[in-house]
Amino acid sequence: MAIRRKDTVLFEKPPVIAAWAAAGGKKESEGPLAPGFDFLTQDASFPDQSCANWEQAESFLQQKAAELCLRKAGISRKEVDLALAGDLQAQCTASNYTMRALEIPFAGVYGACSTMAETLCLAASLAAGGIVHQVMALTSSHFCAAERQFRTPLDYGAKRTPTAQWTATAAGACLLRGPGQRGVPVLSVTFGRVQDYAVHDINNMGAAMMPAAASTLLRYFAATGAAPTDFDAVFTGDLGEVGSALLKEQMEREGIPLPNHKDCGCLLYDVPAQNVQAGGSGAGCSAAVLCSHILPGLQSGQYHRVLFVATGALMSQTTFLQGESIPGIAHCVELAGEETV
Amino acid sequence: MAIRRKDTVLFEKPPVIAAWAAAGGKKESEGPLAPGFDFLTQDASFPDQSCANWEQAESFLQQKAAELCLRKAGISRKEVDLALAGDLQAQCTASNYTMRALEIPFAGVYGACSTMAETLCLAASLAAGGIVHQVMALTSSHFCAAERQFRTPLDYGAKRTPTAQWTATAAGACLLRGPGQRGVPVLSVTFGRVQDYAVHDINNMGAAMMPAAASTLLRYFAATGAAPTDFDAVFTGDLGEVGSALLKEQMEREGIPLPNHKDCGCLLYDVPAQNVQAGGSGAGCSAAVLCSHILPGLQSGQYHRVLFVATGALMSQTTFLQGESIPGIAHCVELAGEETV
Repeated sequence: MAIRRKDTVLFEKPPVIAAWAAAGGKKESEGPLAPGFDFLTQDASFPDQSCANWEQAESFLQQKAAELCLRKAGISRKEVDLALAGDLQAQCTASNYTMRALEIPFAGVYGACSTMAETLCLAASLAAGGIVHQVMALTSSHFCAAERQFRTPLDYGAKRTPTAQWTATAAGACLLRGPGQRGVPVLSVTFGRVQDYAVHDINNMGAAMMPAAASTLLRYFAATGAAPTDFDAVFTGDLGEVGSALLKEQMEREGIPLPNHKDCGCLLYDVPAQNVQAGGSGAGCSAAVLCSHILPGLQSGQYHRVLFVATGALMSQTTFLQGESIPGIAHCVELAGEETV
Repeated sequence: MAIRRKDTVLFEKPPVIAAWAAAGGKKESEGPLAPGFDFLTQDASFPDQSCANWEQAESFLQQKAAELCLRKAGISRKEVDLALAGDLQAQCTASNYTMRALEIPFAGVYGACSTMAETLCLAASLAAGGIVHQVMALTSSHFCAAERQFRTPLDYGAKRTPTAQWTATAAGACLLRGPGQRGVPVLSVTFGRVQDYAVHDINNMGAAMMPAAASTLLRYFAATGAAPTDFDAVFTGDLGEVGSALLKEQMEREGIPLPNHKDCGCLLYDVPAQNVQAGGSGAGCSAAVLCSHILPGLQSGQYHRVLFVATGALMSQTTFLQGESIPGIAHCVELAGEETV
């Protein structure tokens, strides 16, 4: 069953991620992880699919990831007990319309850019607890839908600050099963606590989310007694270059340096060359890096044990305009190589 | 453990709702359920709490419900393993700021007005599966925050249509524990599937959500073999008078009439007298009815077995303006009298 050590739930018999898929757009197709994607399009407005707007296009991309994941798992959508999905759109409509199309029992979640880790934490827990047999964890983001909602309409051509991050046009889907089956084992999950260090700059999400990543990592290491060097890599997502530098500094100050830290926002794009300012972000960013790079690496033997710590900035356009600071959250998923099952 | 029958998860050893609290505003204090509330205010702008806007006021109301629930459970917030919370604000910010204050490990959910049932389904599953020992399910809505976001600013004084529903200024919080403890047992949970019958009228949520309520009820009865008359009451929330009449019609047509149907949107207010058009709505409506009426009734012996089927309309202001139809979802929680534990 499961053992709780403070905030961390350790699975004695780990559930597994049996299949996964990553879908992305043009910029993602030009990035270093492109070969690991299951679907890439040069036109993420999907004019052939009669998507009338960016919001529908995002939902279509999410459906693509879900469908490819199911195909790789060798099952139909009717065999899925539950889907946990969320996205950045107000009221999570990209996921809602995806679930209208897929007709799978659905629990909507909201964790901003931490959503992939949040859905994995919940899905793994429900699979480990015997509540579901096959459960999907799913999320997406779309650059154009996010810019319109959180910043300025694209047509304004607003200048981006160097600390800004580029919302990925990407989706990731995972299909989890209970213990004893083939797949990448989920060894533990740690739900995050909200941290707010009074960052007000909507163009510096990395700084706003860093304290949440540090907090969750410190809680995980304290609860388990593990050290960063026990892992091939500690993946955060998506702090970008600004937040990643701050995290390294902070963890050194805490006495737990992170020599093997990687950030999904810095992995998805060639950061200096692709004009993404401080790196990638968006719920789809860490999801796509997970499904195009981390999980394949755990399957192939490139990685044997990693932490996946997706971070989210929990503000809205309303709270930003009201002058509120930006709370952050980070959820941690501990994954092992497929050979360890 | 848990037995799956189609979409329904039956708990052999049911987790329990050990404590709960309802908080509300002026209109709720004038309604028939007022005596069951744990906190009522005559000014839900909370000027004494330096709430600068309606959004912060909603978060404050949610915190009130959470704190009163913890007090009734006799525990501190540090003893809670996880909080599942969501609300209607874009990016669920009422819950995010509540969790910044409470500092409990937090998984954000979004289910629109179905959120209370969704958080209960997840919380009961995690408690039954041994993943968490003490878990909170929490949601809220605020009339003024919702009107501004979904319809027109209050200052416009826009006329409301007869099919419109009144978003409750209310919050509900439940503290769940694993099997074998004192409280109201959760016998089963059924996660809903998205239904969309092409209703486009943002002022007729009852019609938009009715198919989801019918679908979930039909799936529950088919999976379990139970009949509506096995229950003291089948509570939906919040179809209002329009959606409730449609549900009764639809269930009769399906051959499973609902003689003991009650709707949270019709219970919270004196519908004709309080000028709420078709009735109450909002994530806080069904949550407050659950915590002020249904759970106390299950504790006192007024009710012995009920279904709580909260419904949500999964649109946003963006999708509404884009001309999209309104998808609905309904999650079902089966509750028994406290004496049955």
